[in-house]
Amino acid sequence: MSEESRRVALRVSYDGTNYSGWQRQENADSVQAQIEKALRALTGRTIGVTGASRTDAGVHALGQTVHFDNPSRIPAERFCYALNTRLPDDIRVTASRSVPEDFHARFSARGKTYRYLVNNSVHGTAMLRNFMAHEPRPLDAARMDAAAKAVIGEHDFAAFAAAGSVAKTTVREIWRADVKREGDVVELWVGGKSFLYNMVRILAGTLMYIGLGKLPPDCLKKALETGDRLDLGITAPARGLTLMEVYYDDHLW
Amino acid sequence: MSEESRRVALRVSYDGTNYSGWQRQENADSVQAQIEKALRALTGRTIGVTGASRTDAGVHALGQTVHFDNPSRIPAERFCYALNTRLPDDIRVTASRSVPEDFHARFSARGKTYRYLVNNSVHGTAMLRNFMAHEPRPLDAARMDAAAKAVIGEHDFAAFAAAGSVAKTTVREIWRADVKREGDVVELWVGGKSFLYNMVRILAGTLMYIGLGKLPPDCLKKALETGDRLDLGITAPARGLTLMEVYYDDHLW
Repeated sequence: MSEESRRVALRVSYDGTNYSGWQRQENADSVQAQIEKALRALTGRTIGVTGASRTDAGVHALGQTVHFDNPSRIPAERFCYALNTRLPDDIRVTASRSVPEDFHARFSARGKTYRYLVNNSVHGTAMLRNFMAHEPRPLDAARMDAAAKAVIGEHDFAAFAAAGSVAKTTVREIWRADVKREGDVVELWVGGKSFLYNMVRILAGTLMYIGLGKLPPDCLKKALETGDRLDLGITAPARGLTLMEVYYDDHLW
Repeated sequence: MSEESRRVALRVSYDGTNYSGWQRQENADSVQAQIEKALRALTGRTIGVTGASRTDAGVHALGQTVHFDNPSRIPAERFCYALNTRLPDDIRVTASRSVPEDFHARFSARGKTYRYLVNNSVHGTAMLRNFMAHEPRPLDAARMDAAAKAVIGEHDFAAFAAAGSVAKTTVREIWRADVKREGDVVELWVGGKSFLYNMVRILAGTLMYIGLGKLPPDCLKKALETGDRLDLGITAPARGLTLMEVYYDDHLW
């Protein structure tokens, strides 16, 4: 054990509907607290875990990445099996592996992809209601896709900074922003190096307004210039958002 | 009003997770009871509704069809809007229309399509756990698809009749039975004129055993000949099953 790294990475998927978000907090159930509780039940030790993305209440994940230091003799690749038997079924560890001692789920991340889903039928969806926003009026997905391209590249996203944000800089680099329609569902995919708090949901809400004709397609370009939140649309509901993937220098999973 | 039919058809979608099934029963919450409650709130009258398929607890629907007689002056096509504001969000009425007085959601149905989903990844799915069964061992979908063809046509499905079934005949006509893999998900689609109670779930469970190599591919053919339930596999869990569509002589929706 002494020569090997004790750091373990987990790939975690969750339905965020019934959680106050990723981050542990008093008097509320979080995904982080559930994983730490399962680790304590498994190892008998108190272990803090760190997630790549501090997803909000109601936000989901397919590829959240988490790290912790293993105080036990349990092999890294066994944690996915051992934790799943101790986790509620709305949280699944889909892989686990040993990583170098200096790996950090958040600080080592090179980028992330998020997906935002909108059900665009008149009456909405019963079965997938927790995983999509609902907009009954027709969205012009082609118009949204064209407008979305304005955010690609390195920009000052000050207009997207939620009130109370403590980010040192509001400059962020976005690689992709694509909108497409699949039947009744309008999908937004956004990839970038890092994101401001609520940035994807503000982008999704603004694109929905653009898709409805309530905001002009160039409002995103304008907001990047002015830095004015008022040039943008609403913050779209949390339930439509899913953290799809976190990227690292090495292909982890 | 006097010359027009008072009969109204609803197209209903639901997440069956939190219901005891379609059918109204004492001391348990059903989809039927919820719709009748919403109709009572809307019209002030007690109205019984009839569904095409009496789906079990935990079974979902995208295209359940329902009929009732409208005692009010509310136009048939307004019921979807008016009911949705009074229904819980795991039940949505996606369309409503006037139908002839002799239309009956169950007896007029010419056929139905069901879909059964299995998550076939080692650790399962957190987000879609209520809509799929989980089988961690690899399923051979091509083998399942080939075996499924045995049920196509008119056969005596006595082997598929759940214990306590009260069907007059166990002869049923199946039009399609297709299995395909989409990434981690194995999908079974079954269409037919009518179905015995639990028949699709017994078919799904048997095909899963065939896909695992626990039952020979010709066990379906054999069971149709012997009528012996023991030639088949388990009844697959309710949560994987969704009623997709009900067909009528006229194209209703």
